[in-house]
Amino acid sequence: INGTINYLFDPNILEEIDWSKIKCNFQNGVSYKKPGDGLVVRPLRDDDIHRDYLLLMSQLTKVGIVTEEQFKKRFEDMKRCEGTYYILVIEDKSTNKIVGSSSLIFEQKFIHSAGQRGRIEDVVVNGDYRGKQLGKLLVQLLVLLGELLGVYKLSLECKHDKVGFYENFGFAKDDQAFMIRRFIE
Amino acid sequence: INGTINYLFDPNILEEIDWSKIKCNFQNGVSYKKPGDGLVVRPLRDDDIHRDYLLLMSQLTKVGIVTEEQFKKRFEDMKRCEGTYYILVIEDKSTNKIVGSSSLIFEQKFIHSAGQRGRIEDVVVNGDYRGKQLGKLLVQLLVLLGELLGVYKLSLECKHDKVGFYENFGFAKDDQAFMIRRFIE
Ligand SMILES: CC(=O)N[C@@H]1[C@@H](O)[C@H](O)[C@@H](COP(=O)(O)O)O[C@@H]1O
Ligand SMILES: CC(=O)N[C@@H]1[C@@H](O)[C@H](O)[C@@H](COP(=O)(O)O)O[C@@H]1O
Repeated sequence: INGTINYLFDPNILEEIDWSKIKCNFQNGVSYKKPGDGLVVRPLRDDDIHRDYLLLMSQLTKVGIVTEEQFKKRFEDMKRCEGTYYILVIEDKSTNKIVGSSSLIFEQKFIHSAGQRGRIEDVVVNGDYRGKQLGKLLVQLLVLLGELLGVYKLSLECKHDKVGFYENFGFAKDDQAFMIRRFIE
Repeated sequence: INGTINYLFDPNILEEIDWSKIKCNFQNGVSYKKPGDGLVVRPLRDDDIHRDYLLLMSQLTKVGIVTEEQFKKRFEDMKRCEGTYYILVIEDKSTNKIVGSSSLIFEQKFIHSAGQRGRIEDVVVNGDYRGKQLGKLLVQLLVLLGELLGVYKLSLECKHDKVGFYENFGFAKDDQAFMIRRFIE
């Protein structure tokens, strides 16, 4: 993975990564199996709205209405904010649908020697594709990328029944309180 | 505040805001008192490293070594990433020192109608200035700014003894787990 990860996440590169080239090991020694032909993992593209990307995201939370124009604009906003958004998706080439997605988002700091903090966000796998360890693959790749790009810490928030899943990647429940204020449901 | 907040946070504007012009009300009706002459609230500047900004941050967490060049570079990185970083500081004009700081950081999303999420980060007030409600002022301004710029949610993580403080601003403890993995201490 070390040899390919820069390439994989180069925001200017739209070429696909072949699943068979990706093999990464869990901390606990479990390695990924090829989940079946035709699945590829690659960065999000600005036309993935046509590959049911938003339908997939609606399995995570509320998506609402997003036009193609808004989608492209949001994609460009993220790209312009260099070194900040890394969104990895899994496409099923047999159906041309996005079936998994997760984001790594960086935050520049002055603390920790002007370091950067990373966040794992919006992890979702299509219900029909569960059990293939696709979520594990996405998260593992993003954690590796975070480490490679030199974060001093990664964080995420998740439902309590997912704590064990994230412990696989070296995350531990923090003893701080996580607080939110919602403005729009 | 509504009339001045755009101005206050315009990243191109370096003019100072006079404390006496700022008066905002808590949800619970507490209003800010002028804490004493010579305190101003304004956006961070790229030369605040010379106003003990990093010394202040070291009251929050580990700062390590940050050269003037690194500081300026980090500041420029943040500025380039338009609409993302809003860092508000309080300067004591009698000593030319920064005595309080807090950040509001936006994250662009595809979910929630291509909405944006905000985070309150790195809230710190110099120990010698506590009891003047400076932390409240910073957080309240950033929450207002988040609302004004249209976040669908704001979040933060904090020590358990600060939960009551953040409840003042409409935050509530979320029932998700907050998890971290630290790469550098
Ligand atoms: C690890 C992970 O994927 N956490 C997600 C978070 O990234 C996402 O933004 C949120 C959406 O829910 P919301 O619509 O309530 O913001 O759900 C979960 O907390
Ligand atoms: C609301 C608030 O200010 N929370 C801060 C967070 O923003 C900051 O980045 C962290 C630094 O601690 P660290 O050095 O362990 O990351 O402390 C607290 O969690």
